[in-house]
Amino acid sequence: MSREKYIRDPLYEDFIVLRSPYLEVVEQPFFQRYRRIKQLGLADMVYPGADHSRFQHALGAFHLAGLVVDRLRRRGIQITEDEEQAFLLASLLHDLGHGPFSHSLEHALIPVRHEVLSYALIRYKLSPLLGQDVAERVVRMLQNPAPRTFFHELLDGQLDVDRMDYLRRDSFFCGIPHGQIDVVRILQTLTVLKLDGEEVLAVEEKGMQAVEAYLIARYLMYWAVYYHRTNLAAQALLEAVFLRVRHRRAEGDPPFLTPAFRRFLDAVDGLEDHTSFSEELLESFLLLDDSDVWVSLKIWQEDHDPVLSDLARRFLERRLPRAYPDPDAQTVMDLQARLEARGLPPVYYLREKRPSDVGYAYYAPGRARPIRILSRQGDILEIAQALPTDSLKALSRPVERRFLFLLAREVH
Amino acid sequence: MSREKYIRDPLYEDFIVLRSPYLEVVEQPFFQRYRRIKQLGLADMVYPGADHSRFQHALGAFHLAGLVVDRLRRRGIQITEDEEQAFLLASLLHDLGHGPFSHSLEHALIPVRHEVLSYALIRYKLSPLLGQDVAERVVRMLQNPAPRTFFHELLDGQLDVDRMDYLRRDSFFCGIPHGQIDVVRILQTLTVLKLDGEEVLAVEEKGMQAVEAYLIARYLMYWAVYYHRTNLAAQALLEAVFLRVRHRRAEGDPPFLTPAFRRFLDAVDGLEDHTSFSEELLESFLLLDDSDVWVSLKIWQEDHDPVLSDLARRFLERRLPRAYPDPDAQTVMDLQARLEARGLPPVYYLREKRPSDVGYAYYAPGRARPIRILSRQGDILEIAQALPTDSLKALSRPVERRFLFLLAREVH
Amino acid sequence: MSREKYIRDPLYEDFIVLRSPYLEVVEQPFFQRYRRIKQLGLADMVYPGADHSRFQHALGAFHLAGLVVDRLRRRGIQITEDEEQAFLLASLLHDLGHGPFSHSLEHALIPVRHEVLSYALIRYKLSPLLGQDVAERVVRMLQNPAPRTFFHELLDGQLDVDRMDYLRRDSFFCGIPHGQIDVVRILQTLTVLKLDGEEVLAVEEKGMQAVEAYLIARYLMYWAVYYHRTNLAAQALLEAVFLRVRHRRAEGDPPFLTPAFRRFLDAVDGLEDHTSFSEELLESFLLLDDSDVWVSLKIWQEDHDPVLSDLARRFLERRLPRAYPDPDAQTVMDLQARLEARGLPPVYYLREKRPSDVGYAYYAPGRARPIRILSRQGDILEIAQALPTDSLKALSRPVERRFLFLLAREVH
Amino acid sequence: MSREKYIRDPLYEDFIVLRSPYLEVVEQPFFQRYRRIKQLGLADMVYPGADHSRFQHALGAFHLAGLVVDRLRRRGIQITEDEEQAFLLASLLHDLGHGPFSHSLEHALIPVRHEVLSYALIRYKLSPLLGQDVAERVVRMLQNPAPRTFFHELLDGQLDVDRMDYLRRDSFFCGIPHGQIDVVRILQTLTVLKLDGEEVLAVEEKGMQAVEAYLIARYLMYWAVYYHRTNLAAQALLEAVFLRVRHRRAEGDPPFLTPAFRRFLDAVDGLEDHTSFSEELLESFLLLDDSDVWVSLKIWQEDHDPVLSDLARRFLERRLPRAYPDPDAQTVMDLQARLEARGLPPVYYLREKRPSDVGYAYYAPGRARPIRILSRQGDILEIAQALPTDSLKALSRPVERRFLFLLAREVH
Repeated sequence: MSREKYIRDPLYEDFIVLRSPYLEVVEQPFFQRYRRIKQLGLADMVYPGADHSRFQHALGAFHLAGLVVDRLRRRGIQITEDEEQAFLLASLLHDLGHGPFSHSLEHALIPVRHEVLSYALIRYKLSPLLGQDVAERVVRMLQNPAPRTFFHELLDGQLDVDRMDYLRRDSFFCGIPHGQIDVVRILQTLTVLKLDGEEVLAVEEKGMQAVEAYLIARYLMYWAVYYHRTNLAAQALLEAVFLRVRHRRAEGDPPFLTPAFRRFLDAVDGLEDHTSFSEELLESFLLLDDSDVWVSLKIWQEDHDPVLSDLARRFLERRLPRAYPDPDAQTVMDLQARLEARGLPPVYYLREKRPSDVGYAYYAPGRARPIRILSRQGDILEIAQALPTDSLKALSRPVERRFLFLLAREVH
Repeated sequence: MSREKYIRDPLYEDFIVLRSPYLEVVEQPFFQRYRRIKQLGLADMVYPGADHSRFQHALGAFHLAGLVVDRLRRRGIQITEDEEQAFLLASLLHDLGHGPFSHSLEHALIPVRHEVLSYALIRYKLSPLLGQDVAERVVRMLQNPAPRTFFHELLDGQLDVDRMDYLRRDSFFCGIPHGQIDVVRILQTLTVLKLDGEEVLAVEEKGMQAVEAYLIARYLMYWAVYYHRTNLAAQALLEAVFLRVRHRRAEGDPPFLTPAFRRFLDAVDGLEDHTSFSEELLESFLLLDDSDVWVSLKIWQEDHDPVLSDLARRFLERRLPRAYPDPDAQTVMDLQARLEARGLPPVYYLREKRPSDVGYAYYAPGRARPIRILSRQGDILEIAQALPTDSLKALSRPVERRFLFLLAREVH
Repeated sequence: MSREKYIRDPLYEDFIVLRSPYLEVVEQPFFQRYRRIKQLGLADMVYPGADHSRFQHALGAFHLAGLVVDRLRRRGIQITEDEEQAFLLASLLHDLGHGPFSHSLEHALIPVRHEVLSYALIRYKLSPLLGQDVAERVVRMLQNPAPRTFFHELLDGQLDVDRMDYLRRDSFFCGIPHGQIDVVRILQTLTVLKLDGEEVLAVEEKGMQAVEAYLIARYLMYWAVYYHRTNLAAQALLEAVFLRVRHRRAEGDPPFLTPAFRRFLDAVDGLEDHTSFSEELLESFLLLDDSDVWVSLKIWQEDHDPVLSDLARRFLERRLPRAYPDPDAQTVMDLQARLEARGLPPVYYLREKRPSDVGYAYYAPGRARPIRILSRQGDILEIAQALPTDSLKALSRPVERRFLFLLAREVH
Repeated sequence: MSREKYIRDPLYEDFIVLRSPYLEVVEQPFFQRYRRIKQLGLADMVYPGADHSRFQHALGAFHLAGLVVDRLRRRGIQITEDEEQAFLLASLLHDLGHGPFSHSLEHALIPVRHEVLSYALIRYKLSPLLGQDVAERVVRMLQNPAPRTFFHELLDGQLDVDRMDYLRRDSFFCGIPHGQIDVVRILQTLTVLKLDGEEVLAVEEKGMQAVEAYLIARYLMYWAVYYHRTNLAAQALLEAVFLRVRHRRAEGDPPFLTPAFRRFLDAVDGLEDHTSFSEELLESFLLLDDSDVWVSLKIWQEDHDPVLSDLARRFLERRLPRAYPDPDAQTVMDLQARLEARGLPPVYYLREKRPSDVGYAYYAPGRARPIRILSRQGDILEIAQALPTDSLKALSRPVERRFLFLLAREVH
């Protein structure tokens, strides 16, 4: 089949080229659905430019994956056609398990990790299209351990095509300079080493600084965007809405839900273990996107339930919660009392969030895979050790914040 | 009131600053709704980066309007506080009458010009918030003739803050360079002249080339984006879907509609003349956004009606129509016959679109206001005459294309 | 030889890669000299960012030439190794005949066209390095007619790698958006056609708009930068300085000159015809760069000759001439009289410049080669005819301006 | 005087506006000379785009200084007209003591710190133009301690307008993303606090992350650009050339020098102490720029002295030294022996450089002034303490590298 499409992306100079079988995958409804899910969930509440969809991010990660294959082959690494195909498909589909509002609603909607759901969806949808072998190859690359470790690291590691695309993309659309990492330099210095029988990813020394800058950029973007206080506040509010919906369903008085939403929540209710999913669950999940949430919220604001309508209305009018960083017990109790005095149940109106991040997880046995540097002399070094400063050692210390959110900020 | 918000926009170096009363307007549900309407409707079918919302565009136009006021005052033009406020509010709200999918669905949804609806909505929503006087001032500025002509020209003319923002914004998000106009230079050379008793907008000679480049950029963007063949194809398909919905409603067998959608269409059915609108129409219109369309489409693809479900499915799977530029009568008849042979009614499956644009409407009595240049010698010239080339005269000739779209491209 | 260098350029996402024999050519003194010649001569008098050198532009044109070869081969055009090498060398060296201050001093310094000098220099320097065959192949490609026409068109045509690089580069460094052309789109749609026995360059229809935008950008850049009035004023002043130097040499009273400068001017004096050049002329020319002019100017400002010292001082202190657009005879005579009254010889102090440009030279027998479009139906059309507007017909009319420059602006 | 100039800079959206007295200062020969001194000296040997001049950087720092004044006044800080003028002049002139090739030749040319020379030059040149009072006010602001400390910190501190402009400018022209700091955010959060009787600079907590990112960017830029190994190699070579010139002058056999160069070196020879400078020294210094070095190098490559001509030729042909990081004594001795065996004096042909940098100097009594954060609660914190990670503590550890450069790399 000779069809091909050239797609322009505002981030990359070259067009993204889609040919068979990637073009057919992209045209599937389950992929087109990415168009209707924002990459950053609620971050556009802080940065109005950040409206970009998962669709463009998935294409961007695919584009980088193609460049990585070219690079590694030029370096002399053998990559078969099957491996290339599995790697590129994995880069396109690694986030298939993300539902409406991406991370912002992850736990409020479905009690499984989105990765596990992604594997099930890839098997379910790719097998009929390209055969079960292909689907299994894709899933194996995404899972850990994977046959050739470097593919897995490039898909789900500390230096993967997902992060390289989203850091640049998110910073571009938010309009903040911190995420403008040096992707071309990093790609150009990637290599693969044999280490204890594994084929692992490494970076040549001349790319070390670009990787250092990338890790720092990731750290900065976490606190500037993903864990921005206002972003977390909006998430806390939306989670409270969904908590109320779940309670209403449990009480046998479900509020309005779009058909896809109802089917999906029913299927989740029937979920017995978290590793196998019914076809109904998978199908209804793939019907869901941000629009189901918005339509529901607009209807809920007129619901007879004062809590649900109040919370939905606050969200739609962007009356976001007030944040209390590191609150002491007295503050919590005071706020609870004041809410109760107003008849506002604290379970919904007082919500905590504990964002935490490790900027760079450096090596410890049984933990994350490190980023390895191949020195000019041929030594293999863990990057935090190879650098002349302690910059990455500093980032390897977990940062954890704690915010209490008061959803009825007028109660303050 | 001393609240203020600094909003970062990826297009402008400076933050957009919102203070009272603009901040309160932006927080209203009718303004927050802009977040859920894409500025370019279906253009992201061609340019996946073009996901940006009307929300950010409205803030951008407001930002430019503020810069224009600063500039004109520095030039010595007197602008009262009331005028400034009306002008800035108008820049925020000039597109309030745009519904879901912006221009892409304009005529398929409501049989009035979006400007007329905008005026009604501004009166309806701004009066309770800031008083009827303010609302009337805003509407008067948007209408033609307006008290001080230059305000109107800056809001709805050939060189207005709306276009200056959207050209740059659309080209930025699409990733094409043609719209990167020189906004700062243009703003810096704006002035106001008295001409036959009117106060009209003009550009100092040193800004003439920047305006020429802006008009050319606008012309290029029309054919690269707004009238891109694939964009028109997607519009033709979505219009066919809505035509079928209207027919189904007329036949007394309405398909699923979100509540807001149903309320709105009922109100449109009851519309008697096109200048006054019921409260129900206005309220339900302001509940509508892109999400209502998406949820409806997802449900329609399972509808019992083979035409509706087929068209909805094509749209969701991005199986877009095939375009026939400038088709002759024989082609039309052949395609009709083939569609009928397959039982696909041509009224839905064969759609024509006639995009047309005038790059620069130069002066003719009773027609558009021209762009005027104030020469170094103090003469006032129409820009197409002032330039040393015929570039704008060339653009003043209307360009009209004609495309026939075959929605069932497999019939070809 | 396996050496290679990766060079970062602020314009292109990918690094510019230099391998043998291009790397060896770039390391030659005659190429390193490009570092000391500004691409835009005196344009930084208007746009201080425009400090960029011919060195980076030559690398940029080479980079684009490499992309063109890749593209045409993917299209199925056969290109031999020898042709590729000659084409890439020609893209690096096409401007070797440019001396200090690029175009700004072209005629003031040497009475031959820079292209003719380029051919001689390529033969002189490339033959010892890569052999006479290679040198001749390079020159043949640059000359007209060339063996395979499209190579010549890509090096010195209306759509050549030189222009594509310099438009983007100049606009980037000047900080004006007009030159941000869509290079990737153009490259992607280039093709080669057989036409009357010639292999000519053409553009597929889907790239037509990008080429239209490129030609318009070129037109805008001419008047915004290359023919900016202040740029021309600085050129007029510097030409007057050199006119005075030539007169002083003719009078047997030469002012200070750097050794390279003196050798070169002596060799030019001895020039008998303008097609063959002495080794001394070529060698001394290749020693010259902007620094010889600056050092000389600094010394001339202390010269005993009041005209030379005055003119040099005006230049170094950026006291630029006053411009009179389209002056009438009376103005000229008045200014002459006033200058003479002050003892300032008009031959130096009153200078005319007549910038002229044709935005697009469309086809006429025996004239410039047109830009051809290959339509979707397989027709070959001249671009100005193929477009739906007259935009390029408008640009095909020559624009000529006339400026009189008064170098002693206080005389006014 | 009402003259004003609008200057476009590729880094800033707004034009840089010059009015009296800044416009007159910029037009002086001593300021125009900045056009002929590259900001980054030899960095364009690595990054060919980095051709930008001190001229544009000085205007950029001035632009930021103007924005800072606006910001602080809006914050309620009183700044008199005289203070504003002194601050803006200081931002324009703070680097007047930089000679040809900026830092690259600093110590090879003149045995005083460039700051001290700057003060003398400001007094010498500004006094006749604007009066001695003005000149003294400018110098006092640059010196430490200064009357109102925050002015000094903004001119020569860890968060000054100089660094904010050059980081962005250098990264823009080099084409590397690391220096794209968030200047607007930093400016927007600057404030002034009274602390122990001093008025010191501080940053509001909401700007803390932007300042953290700026300090990290500075650290990354040091090692990516300013201390790039190839940049240091080129410096080592040029320093060896100048060492040879000094030796030749000491031996009474001076090579060619441009007149300005000879006058200046003679004046330096006569320098008795390093705080007062003769008019001859100052005048001749202000005649020097990069062109004197280039012309001299081109002449030196033909000098009778084999060492001087060889070194000059290597430099002009970009045959740069080979680097040995952290060489041991054996390596040094081996290389010396091999050089001597070839008759190449190691004093010129083997050069060491020890680049060192402290990314952030945090507070210690009597040492650098820290960057202070004003927390939301009103506390004043040192930034390295205020941050949730140790990122800046890591950067506060000095990094020192040691490179041995072998100028005759073929000896290796």
